[in-house]
Amino acid sequence: MKLICSKANLLKGVNIVSKAVPSKTTMSILECILIDASASEIKFTANDMELGIETIVEGEILEKGIVAIDAKVFSEIVRKLPDNDVTIDTDSNYQISITCEKANFHISGKSGEDFSYLPYIEKTDFISLSQFTLKEVIRQTIFSIADNDNNKLMTGELFEIHNNEFKVVSLDGHRISIRKIELKDSYPDRKVIVPGKSLQEVSKILSGETDEEVRIFFTGNHIVFEFDNTMVVSRLIEGEYFKINQMLSSDYETKFVINKKELLSCIDRATLLVKEGDKKPIIFRITDEDMEISINSQLGSMKEEIDIQKEGKDILIGFNPKFLIDALRVIDDENITIYMVNPKAPCYIRDDEQKYIYLILPVNFNASAN
Amino acid sequence: MKLICSKANLLKGVNIVSKAVPSKTTMSILECILIDASASEIKFTANDMELGIETIVEGEILEKGIVAIDAKVFSEIVRKLPDNDVTIDTDSNYQISITCEKANFHISGKSGEDFSYLPYIEKTDFISLSQFTLKEVIRQTIFSIADNDNNKLMTGELFEIHNNEFKVVSLDGHRISIRKIELKDSYPDRKVIVPGKSLQEVSKILSGETDEEVRIFFTGNHIVFEFDNTMVVSRLIEGEYFKINQMLSSDYETKFVINKKELLSCIDRATLLVKEGDKKPIIFRITDEDMEISINSQLGSMKEEIDIQKEGKDILIGFNPKFLIDALRVIDDENITIYMVNPKAPCYIRDDEQKYIYLILPVNFNASAN
Repeated sequence: MKLICSKANLLKGVNIVSKAVPSKTTMSILECILIDASASEIKFTANDMELGIETIVEGEILEKGIVAIDAKVFSEIVRKLPDNDVTIDTDSNYQISITCEKANFHISGKSGEDFSYLPYIEKTDFISLSQFTLKEVIRQTIFSIADNDNNKLMTGELFEIHNNEFKVVSLDGHRISIRKIELKDSYPDRKVIVPGKSLQEVSKILSGETDEEVRIFFTGNHIVFEFDNTMVVSRLIEGEYFKINQMLSSDYETKFVINKKELLSCIDRATLLVKEGDKKPIIFRITDEDMEISINSQLGSMKEEIDIQKEGKDILIGFNPKFLIDALRVIDDENITIYMVNPKAPCYIRDDEQKYIYLILPVNFNASAN
Repeated sequence: MKLICSKANLLKGVNIVSKAVPSKTTMSILECILIDASASEIKFTANDMELGIETIVEGEILEKGIVAIDAKVFSEIVRKLPDNDVTIDTDSNYQISITCEKANFHISGKSGEDFSYLPYIEKTDFISLSQFTLKEVIRQTIFSIADNDNNKLMTGELFEIHNNEFKVVSLDGHRISIRKIELKDSYPDRKVIVPGKSLQEVSKILSGETDEEVRIFFTGNHIVFEFDNTMVVSRLIEGEYFKINQMLSSDYETKFVINKKELLSCIDRATLLVKEGDKKPIIFRITDEDMEISINSQLGSMKEEIDIQKEGKDILIGFNPKFLIDALRVIDDENITIYMVNPKAPCYIRDDEQKYIYLILPVNFNASAN
């Protein structure tokens, strides 16, 4: 095999497929990028068996062939080459020579025989949206997937399509995040659970441009994201997702509007008194005039008042500050509306059209101590 | 005690003195910043017994007093306060209230009785130079102090003053770094060993402006850096520094001029094949035409040629690439001159006026394998 590619194109390709190279594995072939120049295009592939990524790299094929090359070493070499054309040349023993200007590297490759190729996907059933929208919707929900494997379903996100509505849901037992997107076209109903890790990697590769499209294909066991010259294939999580609608309620006893940035800065300040692992709740004392936010810890105490526009009952309620911070960070609205029922029932942050809903469970605390 | 300071001034003061707060200590008073408003100025002090820093913070004293406050908690609170005036108020039990806009923090302070005040320094014997020069000269030598305590002298830098020459030296047994600065005035001879850690912290606080001055005072056991509103006091390392002049030689068999950036990029590329802890030398094969740089490791091999202007003998010599990289990074010249004697003798990188000298010992390698 013999190829010539610019350093920039090589680097782009390597950066994209590297997202599917596992950091730890016992199968050394999975640590490789497959360079496939056996047909008319140069294709890089990596596959950790759950997530597979394939991308077309622009360049010239002087001699057709295939080779598998250690992803880490290859990526570091490419990164440090001068900005110029790079020649990649392999011999019949898969010894690879990489030359750029006066620099020449020699490393050993593999035949690629053992490489796990991506599954063949019949591309019929799909939806289309902008890269920007997909990237945003992942960012706005991914934080509330579970961070451990105790319940496999919680490590993924629900992707639900109904007519022209695309709904993304994640939950971890303490909170639920829901975002709804309006698609340009209507599609048949679909409901799949996508591994959170796959979404995190997809999100890193997406350009995030509003005028660049991404097409999402569905098969029985896989989801495929196709954009630019790249295809990302992820296994789906099997099982029936939680019945979200049963958990949501639109009843409330207290409703208030608050400036999002002020609330976020205040909670941020309060949490500096909470050391990691120390589960101190942040207390909201909501009255007609304002909201008093307070926290008590071994390090000291903090109190702050914020103006709110309130309807309904006064309430004293405690939260894990991290859950509030996570949700507030991904809401773009300047002012937000928060709904509460009582100190033991979930609180909701949602907009009028319910394009976003963040449900957060309160925590118990010793009210007399506050 | 009651003070009003802007958040910006508080933060500046806290950031400066925090450099002298030890990250680990059994004496909790050392983890504190002393706020001394007992006289007409607000003074922050921190002291880890080896390094002490004192800085004047602009603000208004409404009620005189002294309090010691946990540096980490105080610094985090100040950092997250809104950009406005901050009131710090203590009661007779050293309970501290910090108020800014509607936010109010309560934390416990200490009396400051146990605080180790900085030693009294008679400020007579001093030199003066620009903050820029001091910061640069530290950066250009600090990398070759020893990273362990086996030989205390090697953990410090020699500061030597002779007439109007200020010489800074560091060495770690494999290499020596020497920088010489011309001072505006002449001073009496001085020779002290300053702990490297103190210099690293001083360097972080120095603004690095060419038109800002720093005055360096010497006493029997201490060195004092005075600049802006800040005073840094460091203990000196006791003992007689190595006799550097006996280690230096101006004889050479091979001399060549090379583009610094090209050499640095090439060594940088070569070292990516060397995993941490793997001591593979980089080999220079120097001939009349050019220099061939090569490296061999388990991961593969790399070769590259660089143009040089050479005088004297051909030579084949090996180095620890890290030592070359460290020295090359801090040299500002576009082209540098390297002097060699034989594959077992030290190599020198130095300019004609010997404003800088970097001595690096070569390493043995199996020449037949290259």
